[in-house]
Amino acid sequence: MKLKAAVLGATGMVGQKFIQLLSDHEWFEITSLIASEKRVGKFYGEEVNWVVSANVPEKVKDLEMQPMDPKVIDADIVFSALPSDIAKKVEPEFAKAGFVIASNASAYRMDEDVPLVIPEVNPDHLGLVEVQKRNRNWDGFIVTNPNCTTIVLVLSLKPLMDLGLRKVIVSTMQALSGAGFPGVPSLGIMDNILPFIKGEEEKVETEPLKLLGKFDGERIRFADLKVSASCHRVPVIDGHLESVWAEFNRDVSVEEVVDAFESFKPLDLPTSPEKLIIVRNEPDRPQPRLDRDEGGGMSITVGRIRKDDSAIKYLVLGHNTVRGAAGASILNAELMIKEKLI
Amino acid sequence: MKLKAAVLGATGMVGQKFIQLLSDHEWFEITSLIASEKRVGKFYGEEVNWVVSANVPEKVKDLEMQPMDPKVIDADIVFSALPSDIAKKVEPEFAKAGFVIASNASAYRMDEDVPLVIPEVNPDHLGLVEVQKRNRNWDGFIVTNPNCTTIVLVLSLKPLMDLGLRKVIVSTMQALSGAGFPGVPSLGIMDNILPFIKGEEEKVETEPLKLLGKFDGERIRFADLKVSASCHRVPVIDGHLESVWAEFNRDVSVEEVVDAFESFKPLDLPTSPEKLIIVRNEPDRPQPRLDRDEGGGMSITVGRIRKDDSAIKYLVLGHNTVRGAAGASILNAELMIKEKLI
Amino acid sequence: MKLKAAVLGATGMVGQKFIQLLSDHEWFEITSLIASEKRVGKFYGEEVNWVVSANVPEKVKDLEMQPMDPKVIDADIVFSALPSDIAKKVEPEFAKAGFVIASNASAYRMDEDVPLVIPEVNPDHLGLVEVQKRNRNWDGFIVTNPNCTTIVLVLSLKPLMDLGLRKVIVSTMQALSGAGFPGVPSLGIMDNILPFIKGEEEKVETEPLKLLGKFDGERIRFADLKVSASCHRVPVIDGHLESVWAEFNRDVSVEEVVDAFESFKPLDLPTSPEKLIIVRNEPDRPQPRLDRDEGGGMSITVGRIRKDDSAIKYLVLGHNTVRGAAGASILNAELMIKEKLI
Amino acid sequence: MKLKAAVLGATGMVGQKFIQLLSDHEWFEITSLIASEKRVGKFYGEEVNWVVSANVPEKVKDLEMQPMDPKVIDADIVFSALPSDIAKKVEPEFAKAGFVIASNASAYRMDEDVPLVIPEVNPDHLGLVEVQKRNRNWDGFIVTNPNCTTIVLVLSLKPLMDLGLRKVIVSTMQALSGAGFPGVPSLGIMDNILPFIKGEEEKVETEPLKLLGKFDGERIRFADLKVSASCHRVPVIDGHLESVWAEFNRDVSVEEVVDAFESFKPLDLPTSPEKLIIVRNEPDRPQPRLDRDEGGGMSITVGRIRKDDSAIKYLVLGHNTVRGAAGASILNAELMIKEKLI
Repeated sequence: MKLKAAVLGATGMVGQKFIQLLSDHEWFEITSLIASEKRVGKFYGEEVNWVVSANVPEKVKDLEMQPMDPKVIDADIVFSALPSDIAKKVEPEFAKAGFVIASNASAYRMDEDVPLVIPEVNPDHLGLVEVQKRNRNWDGFIVTNPNCTTIVLVLSLKPLMDLGLRKVIVSTMQALSGAGFPGVPSLGIMDNILPFIKGEEEKVETEPLKLLGKFDGERIRFADLKVSASCHRVPVIDGHLESVWAEFNRDVSVEEVVDAFESFKPLDLPTSPEKLIIVRNEPDRPQPRLDRDEGGGMSITVGRIRKDDSAIKYLVLGHNTVRGAAGASILNAELMIKEKLI
Repeated sequence: MKLKAAVLGATGMVGQKFIQLLSDHEWFEITSLIASEKRVGKFYGEEVNWVVSANVPEKVKDLEMQPMDPKVIDADIVFSALPSDIAKKVEPEFAKAGFVIASNASAYRMDEDVPLVIPEVNPDHLGLVEVQKRNRNWDGFIVTNPNCTTIVLVLSLKPLMDLGLRKVIVSTMQALSGAGFPGVPSLGIMDNILPFIKGEEEKVETEPLKLLGKFDGERIRFADLKVSASCHRVPVIDGHLESVWAEFNRDVSVEEVVDAFESFKPLDLPTSPEKLIIVRNEPDRPQPRLDRDEGGGMSITVGRIRKDDSAIKYLVLGHNTVRGAAGASILNAELMIKEKLI
Repeated sequence: MKLKAAVLGATGMVGQKFIQLLSDHEWFEITSLIASEKRVGKFYGEEVNWVVSANVPEKVKDLEMQPMDPKVIDADIVFSALPSDIAKKVEPEFAKAGFVIASNASAYRMDEDVPLVIPEVNPDHLGLVEVQKRNRNWDGFIVTNPNCTTIVLVLSLKPLMDLGLRKVIVSTMQALSGAGFPGVPSLGIMDNILPFIKGEEEKVETEPLKLLGKFDGERIRFADLKVSASCHRVPVIDGHLESVWAEFNRDVSVEEVVDAFESFKPLDLPTSPEKLIIVRNEPDRPQPRLDRDEGGGMSITVGRIRKDDSAIKYLVLGHNTVRGAAGASILNAELMIKEKLI
Repeated sequence: MKLKAAVLGATGMVGQKFIQLLSDHEWFEITSLIASEKRVGKFYGEEVNWVVSANVPEKVKDLEMQPMDPKVIDADIVFSALPSDIAKKVEPEFAKAGFVIASNASAYRMDEDVPLVIPEVNPDHLGLVEVQKRNRNWDGFIVTNPNCTTIVLVLSLKPLMDLGLRKVIVSTMQALSGAGFPGVPSLGIMDNILPFIKGEEEKVETEPLKLLGKFDGERIRFADLKVSASCHRVPVIDGHLESVWAEFNRDVSVEEVVDAFESFKPLDLPTSPEKLIIVRNEPDRPQPRLDRDEGGGMSITVGRIRKDDSAIKYLVLGHNTVRGAAGASILNAELMIKEKLI
């Protein structure tokens, strides 16, 4: 017996990715595709400009799109792929009406009583759900996942925390799909790099502090860590590659770092990859095109782990629309089910 | 009356760039194109796989290629575009025979008695020429320019030295032309990033210390500076983009950095750009395709200068085969003429 | 004493190209930049999203944008880079008010009394100006240039007409800049081809018949020629490459075709290239990146001319936003001046 | 009980594709990887520069590479991914020694007694095997598949033959993987098209005549058809897109063509796709990135079927290294098994 899943913002790129990942999911069945007013009542397959694969999944082709109105939606879980400004308004309406929302939007990520969760990193932060429901007097609640670049980075930072990590300088090379569709104009990025992504560096510098912080039963005590980010857009379809310089409280060896990465285990959830962090020893890996689909896009790959005086340098790569967006929300929802929050 | 210029390694990509830049030069005239044995005696225009523009310059089309033998070459200046291993052997033979060599090869850059020069940065290091001739008992001498990534970086670091620069962490996004032709296979870089460039990080971490060092009349005292580099290849034809994190001995403001960049003036040489460092204020510049040709490829462009606690972050871009290779050697030769070394 | 030039639709990609080409023109001086209502009164340099080079030309940076109202415009010639639907309404208003319009828009190209002109191909079609003014009772008039793909093709077809050309099958590989900015989304074209360009094939199949037709003093007798086109978008920034199969009334040799191409001479106008058709003999030319800028983007390059039974196959390449758009209108305006129509 | 499969030329790009497709095959098990002398005795996983996916399949990682010597090879079927010049010499040695060879090499394709087969198109041409063995006095034999561009084209032409097809003009946009690895230099194809592929047009113009010909028990009577090809390389990783103009003996409707395409059924073999020809009705399909993996890369996709006077124009797309190379040989081998030739 599958749970009924709704997708908020079903026609955008992340919405499509939700549908792609949910259309074969063992726990969820897509029952509601929610879109902007002008699309309501139309068949998904006829209306969407499907860009993530050859074909709209058969199962959703003939679903009529529904309005952003909690009263008409019947679902056990609502996945949100809404742009932040719309999420700001719509997600609380659904939460108030009793829905559980697994949101990829940035609108509420940094709110004190909203869990910002990567299941393998800080599952206990789901404890904030109770705080949130109490604070806001809602029947439902919102659980968020971080920004795509943050997720990939923090999955690699988590195992380093015990080694005394205190400062991170990261320079990113981010994929086009991170900007959605139509997103980046081809004339802007062919034979070019765009050295700026609006709002990105702020997210990458703050979200990790919450994710790596401690939940004390009432709130998150932010991690004592400094993250400095420079974010750049490159002509790559999928896969964010991040060049990391990490400084520790003590001298740390490459072997310790490799051990930490390899000891970090995935959970046992349907969307979990077999291996969470893949460590490559070749000099020229990870590469976006070769490594982004590892673990169905849910693994991250690290490489070029090397010493730089007392610091460590490495590269980390992850699939930005799977592990970094739709897959992140779905994994959060799976965790909530396991934790009996749904 | 122009000086006679020879090009060592004339058929490769940097060799072609030398020819392109020299074919309209007001001080030099190409008289000798020197190539590997199998090409000797053949016409340049028929033999070269010309890839840097539509047409081989008319002036050199019918030049017969000459051997790497100083005895048969007649030139006032020899530009070297040789691969490092061949340069290792050939350049000393020419220097010994009395030729002045402006070399883009890495073979002798870090030798104690070989000037490694960026004219605007350390023109006084040409004083090493006397030391070199004395040491090696040569009639001629070798003057080198740095690695392409180093040049772009160091042009931006030089004006920061007076502000108390002590540490630099740089993450690069380097163009395909840096690997020459055929260089990077298209299947390796389409929809991809290559996170490794052999030998590059070592050069970027050491050459700046010599360039920014002090010449005491006998040797270079290396600068007291730490440079940490991560080098990556991106699908861009020309133009290295470098994301810099710079730490100082004291708190430095964005305005001071902008002032320092804008106060750094070009020399008055034929290949000098009108403006040495172009500071862009837009949030999304510099971009390789838009900015690489500024100043005929001899300017560098900086942007996104921003504060990061006590550090400063910025981007710098320069044309890797002009300012970073052929143009660098030519500017060195022009400086040598001005300094009456030729 | 330069003529005053206005640009209609100054902020779009073709508008920018007009400005770039006109900013150094020996006959014209840009005096009016005309844009949509919301931009009127703003400085061009602050408002435009300039994408065609590093910098907005100094001359136009501080021009205040003007409305699409003939009453407030002072110009000797109006260049139109308007989208077709807006051109449909606005161009006649300017023509009625006495302005001469050199238009790149498709709105009026196929109107019976509107000249569709490539100066080297059918300069006599300017005779329609008199017919147009008489018909429409206008003080001014509209002269159009063809679609970018058509221009490149027809420049190569014109010299073949005397050899008995009767049928052309052309398959195109068209550059991204043909779709303007933002135009084609990067996610749509990276590692991809788009096999459809709306309205393009119709234009390429009809416009040549008018261009190659005969003006009998009152109207154009269309050429007796069949053109069949398949148009495709490829990941190339500038330069349309067209693969042509041409059938003749008689057996034609490769030599005859080469002769015809090489005998086709440019006019003596400021924007004319030195060589109109460049014939390449290498097996792998023309190539967009190498050959598109020949003659300042106003030459076309042909290659791979080969026999196919009684037909001839070849490739032709031209710069779509220079020869195929802004440069085409400017050359038309120059011809009109020479013909004393302005 | 699986058949033992050897791969000749195992380290190249097509060799890798063979290994990828065979490593999960229900009828075959890879037992021998055959490579050039210098690699013999080395482990495949350590020696290959694997570029077709993230990881070398576990099963073959530790296989020691074997020499091109039939005496030391134990296999039921030999797949050949050899370059043509080496295939010329090596394949007959294996055939003489009794091996069955399914070859992707062009060396023997057009030999009178060598079957050139696409299983869905001309399975009966396998009858040539008897002729070949008799002629050459071999215990084994060679069966070939066509050039990648030919296969995609001919799969679409076969169902049109009954409609009276007599002439085809095709202009191709071919993927980079068709040139192997390292293949096309990135500097040659970024922001560019290469309008020439050595030897390709000749193959595309002749192979279809054999494939669509009739086997009379002794030889193939070539089809009465004219094919004219223009072949171009585009910056696409996988997937050949072909723009076809097809002329018939009579007036043919779009509906007849669609019917013919949809009535063409796949065989019932392990590598057969569920649907052989996918007909897309959208105006902008097929697209390489979206459609190349249909049917596991073994389907072809057609679109934009439209009338052009009495001719028909359409686009066809297929995966060049799956349906067009390794998958083609494997399907041939499956057919041979079904036909009890192995």
